[in-house]
Amino acid sequence: MKLSEIGEFALIDRLAVLARGGAGVIQGIGDDCAVLEAGAPGTVLLFTTDLLIEHVHFDRATTPARALGRKALAANLSDVAAMGGTPRFFLVNLAAPPHTPVEWVEALYAGIGERADASGAALVGGDTAASPDAIHLAIALLGECPEAEVIYRHGARPGDSIFVTGSPGESAAGLALLTAELAGGFDPGADRAAFEALKARHLDPEPRLNAGRALARARAATALIDVSDGLLADLGHVLARSGCGARVEAARVPVSPALAAAGARLGLDPLALALAGGEDYELLFTAPPGAAPEALSRLLGVAVSRIGAITPGPDRARVVDAAEKEVPILPSGFDHFRPR
Amino acid sequence: MKLSEIGEFALIDRLAVLARGGAGVIQGIGDDCAVLEAGAPGTVLLFTTDLLIEHVHFDRATTPARALGRKALAANLSDVAAMGGTPRFFLVNLAAPPHTPVEWVEALYAGIGERADASGAALVGGDTAASPDAIHLAIALLGECPEAEVIYRHGARPGDSIFVTGSPGESAAGLALLTAELAGGFDPGADRAAFEALKARHLDPEPRLNAGRALARARAATALIDVSDGLLADLGHVLARSGCGARVEAARVPVSPALAAAGARLGLDPLALALAGGEDYELLFTAPPGAAPEALSRLLGVAVSRIGAITPGPDRARVVDAAEKEVPILPSGFDHFRPR
Repeated sequence: MKLSEIGEFALIDRLAVLARGGAGVIQGIGDDCAVLEAGAPGTVLLFTTDLLIEHVHFDRATTPARALGRKALAANLSDVAAMGGTPRFFLVNLAAPPHTPVEWVEALYAGIGERADASGAALVGGDTAASPDAIHLAIALLGECPEAEVIYRHGARPGDSIFVTGSPGESAAGLALLTAELAGGFDPGADRAAFEALKARHLDPEPRLNAGRALARARAATALIDVSDGLLADLGHVLARSGCGARVEAARVPVSPALAAAGARLGLDPLALALAGGEDYELLFTAPPGAAPEALSRLLGVAVSRIGAITPGPDRARVVDAAEKEVPILPSGFDHFRPR
Repeated sequence: MKLSEIGEFALIDRLAVLARGGAGVIQGIGDDCAVLEAGAPGTVLLFTTDLLIEHVHFDRATTPARALGRKALAANLSDVAAMGGTPRFFLVNLAAPPHTPVEWVEALYAGIGERADASGAALVGGDTAASPDAIHLAIALLGECPEAEVIYRHGARPGDSIFVTGSPGESAAGLALLTAELAGGFDPGADRAAFEALKARHLDPEPRLNAGRALARARAATALIDVSDGLLADLGHVLARSGCGARVEAARVPVSPALAAAGARLGLDPLALALAGGEDYELLFTAPPGAAPEALSRLLGVAVSRIGAITPGPDRARVVDAAEKEVPILPSGFDHFRPR
């Protein structure tokens, strides 16, 4: 049997069998970071890693090296944000073919350095090797958080409201625009500025570190995850861990004017992009029924939309329109090993 | 300019420029692990990572998946041993082509799990993705050590003795035997058992965790490194960081009967294998002049040989024969980006 026959999540399950816990392991596989009892008293360590592979996660034709460096660290920072923590230290692994231009690697490192400086995380080591072909970049990040403030995926309760920061789907729209431009003959016309902003959202996403810390400090959320696989897929992770269902109101899912314009121009449904697009690195969280998006927005320093509510199980999300009719669930999430 | 023109160490230098230190960074790039002030009071964290890439570090034809898993974790454990620390938590990144057999990955994970159980380190997460071609495996390991017991590369002083555990060179001999067997027509004859042991030393090296801890607890070493690049190359790292030179007595470099037999059989100089072969994961350390190998061997629970002494700079090792004549320095260390 081949990996392509079992898919990525079955493979992760096999790894999870090995992760049997152990002394000091508060949370192993199953959340945005591992949570470990090895820090200063009252503080836990957060431990996470992300892979970025050429031809799989990025192409050099559409991704400048500096943006790739920024995004690689941003994806890891977002995992720490999604626990409510503060990033501290990271390692960089780079495997690149010998014919890779030195300037490309220097630009990659410069991008990583910019994100590191902005986040306060310190580069402390790494490994470098030749790759037989594709560039592989992996970052391992260590963060910390007061133990009582960590926000897990498993805390959502029926009745909680579901919130999301910013405008998910813009990253997927930006990628679609980049792809259309690469094919040639694409003229953005009057939407040039809006489309440039969408492309930047894909190439250089902003990890919501301050928002995650604010949520944790205020103990304002019952569950928290970042939107990396796609809003519905990531909500699904929260539901699976919390043992709840969800009702998402399609009309409340934020669709920015830029996202709407890109959808119209490319023939893509903006709602589908918002619900199924990945790599936004927005925060998706649940909070007790009384929480108001305006107050949360002030607390987090970023736009917050209430998109639905947690329901009693089963652990799936129903997306409904204004007439309470279910909108068909769109294919979402990305499986690395399934044939496409 | 291409990576192949500047070489691996120049590339690491470029990464080191980014590693400017920061709050809590006691030691960044430049030792076997980063040393971080983020643990319990009086305790520091040790943070390290290693890459293993198919066709570069291993081939599936010569490396069974289970041995590869054991070795991947062993290489990281050895980095923690080389600081005197205790391994605690690790993450596994695996990128594999979709056609990879599931059974191969399961065997890999089983090997990782065996080494984890034996070392007390807990698997707490990781990432998985499709690779366009070669298998890439990266482990990031977090350990800890009482701050006052950490042994760095930079503490060697003129007059210190130089010691090494076990029999370095056996891993390189094992690899040479595996390669000869793969070419076909190789009959080990009466040396079969010895050659099997050498192959096991290459495929399944033992990280010297207990020895590293014992050295640290007893504060018996002034500098410590593991032999991964090759004895002389790794001694060179100690010399560069300590600002000293070294005199290595060729006659004192341990050459086991198995290593001698493999050298004779394959037409390779056993001394060259011992001094330049890599991936032994033995410990190389310096200690004040009075230290006796027998006492150190009892303390560490493994054979210890005194191979020379630290001298005032310049920071290179001279290997001398019984007549005090310099043995030509052999090419040693492995540069991933240099054409071979």
